[in-house]
Amino acid sequence: MHDLDADTGRVPLSVLGLGLMGQALAAAFLGRGHPTTVWNRTRAKAEPLAAQGAQLAWTVRDAVTAGPLVVICVSDYDTVRDILEPVSRDLSGRTLVNLTSGTSQEARETAQWVIHQGAVYLDGAIMAVPPAIGTANATVLYSGPTTAFDRHQQALSSLGSPVYVGADHGLPSLFDAAALSLVWSTLNGFLHGAALLGKAGIPATAFARLAKTGIETVADWVPGYAQQIDDGTYPATESTVNTNLTGMKHLLHESHAADINTELPELLATLAERAVAKGHGNNSYAAITEQLRHPSP
Amino acid sequence: MHDLDADTGRVPLSVLGLGLMGQALAAAFLGRGHPTTVWNRTRAKAEPLAAQGAQLAWTVRDAVTAGPLVVICVSDYDTVRDILEPVSRDLSGRTLVNLTSGTSQEARETAQWVIHQGAVYLDGAIMAVPPAIGTANATVLYSGPTTAFDRHQQALSSLGSPVYVGADHGLPSLFDAAALSLVWSTLNGFLHGAALLGKAGIPATAFARLAKTGIETVADWVPGYAQQIDDGTYPATESTVNTNLTGMKHLLHESHAADINTELPELLATLAERAVAKGHGNNSYAAITEQLRHPSP
Repeated sequence: MHDLDADTGRVPLSVLGLGLMGQALAAAFLGRGHPTTVWNRTRAKAEPLAAQGAQLAWTVRDAVTAGPLVVICVSDYDTVRDILEPVSRDLSGRTLVNLTSGTSQEARETAQWVIHQGAVYLDGAIMAVPPAIGTANATVLYSGPTTAFDRHQQALSSLGSPVYVGADHGLPSLFDAAALSLVWSTLNGFLHGAALLGKAGIPATAFARLAKTGIETVADWVPGYAQQIDDGTYPATESTVNTNLTGMKHLLHESHAADINTELPELLATLAERAVAKGHGNNSYAAITEQLRHPSP
Repeated sequence: MHDLDADTGRVPLSVLGLGLMGQALAAAFLGRGHPTTVWNRTRAKAEPLAAQGAQLAWTVRDAVTAGPLVVICVSDYDTVRDILEPVSRDLSGRTLVNLTSGTSQEARETAQWVIHQGAVYLDGAIMAVPPAIGTANATVLYSGPTTAFDRHQQALSSLGSPVYVGADHGLPSLFDAAALSLVWSTLNGFLHGAALLGKAGIPATAFARLAKTGIETVADWVPGYAQQIDDGTYPATESTVNTNLTGMKHLLHESHAADINTELPELLATLAERAVAKGHGNNSYAAITEQLRHPSP
């Protein structure tokens, strides 16, 4: 199979699944000059991409056989299997890049099935929202054989910044879950703060600047705390768990006094109290990670 | 009372309480040329500051009467009262700046007492760790009479960036609690992610870059989400609560599969499920703030 299109010098590829993310992926490949075939269960979503130069495939088989690289991004892994099982023989010899969100277990199971069809499998996780696709702000994590990643890295760089995280096909989903736990936690902290200040008549926009500064400060601490976690020692460079626990009790008091939800501050204080009980009171906040490594008590 | 020292042209002031933070405050005032008198219950902590040019006060009275501006930063508000009640008459005519951490209620009660002594009261909250004091990275929030803030703004700018948040003496503590809810939540999200990846053999340092990027992305969303909260409408610019809830279930699944603590992902999913139940499934993540405005169910 010839990898590169004779006219464009780019790998011809197909994109299966044209939700908001799939559309953004196809548009990014087209923008970098890749001959791009698109398929979606409901064909209407493919038409705007045709206007940008995409080939519309009538069937999944037409899409899969359009080139050596097949990219799929649908709602879940069950849908991946529903779409690809009828054309499993056509996958042989091609590289499937699955950018569907799911768990590491689903990714590993899908890898087994795809490899069994004689195809090469890269699992990926997109760490970006659709409007960021095609910009350097979109990080996409990949796992699978390094040879396949290296071979298609140029095509995949159309989507943003590709980062190879290892051979284990479960790793992108795991990194995705880890990064999202951070994103949601950060947002919840902001939303809790906004709810607290809102009860005192302070608009959220008046909190935004301070909140942004607070978040950026924490971003600066992350590399140092990561090193502490890997070292397994937690010198209190910024502040101690004890000092933070005192502040958490203030937050809990303020939240009760304002008659707002207290579940977030309760969880914060509970975890810090457990760390103190384990002798980490004078350590840095990073010591709390040890309380998270075991099942909830 | 003459405000400015004849030699230096700076306001003479005193710093009561020389923990890590108090020492940093005194050093910052000295660095900007303020005649600075320091006092601490245990005198040994004052001695390194004497080498930097501070006057050591033997008694609280000596410290309070050293100038028109008295700054106090001790472990809690009860300690503030214990220290100042014996010298309450000496406060009259001076400005007390209280940078002790506490609740908004404690700040308001302390304000009443200080004003009753004939003094002017500014309550403050330091949004920084001691090593940042004296740099532009240290934001310090103040509340109380604007005239007092304006009069002493130059002196207070020795400590970092002073921000006046309103006349209500409770506001700095409330902003502090809100900002810290964000800081701790962000850190817990990182520590949870690190615990999850750690179980798969991925070091925290290998997660740090992605984590930092994730945090910075959220920082960029904050102004827009703040505006949505103030508007009371939550158009899904980045992603919907439904989409995020799917991802939270993946995080919960991964956390169970890795046999780590699940309290954080459970709280995330519970709050998102409540938002969906209230009809916010297709709204942006900011809609979750409405679930936080009421007492925990």
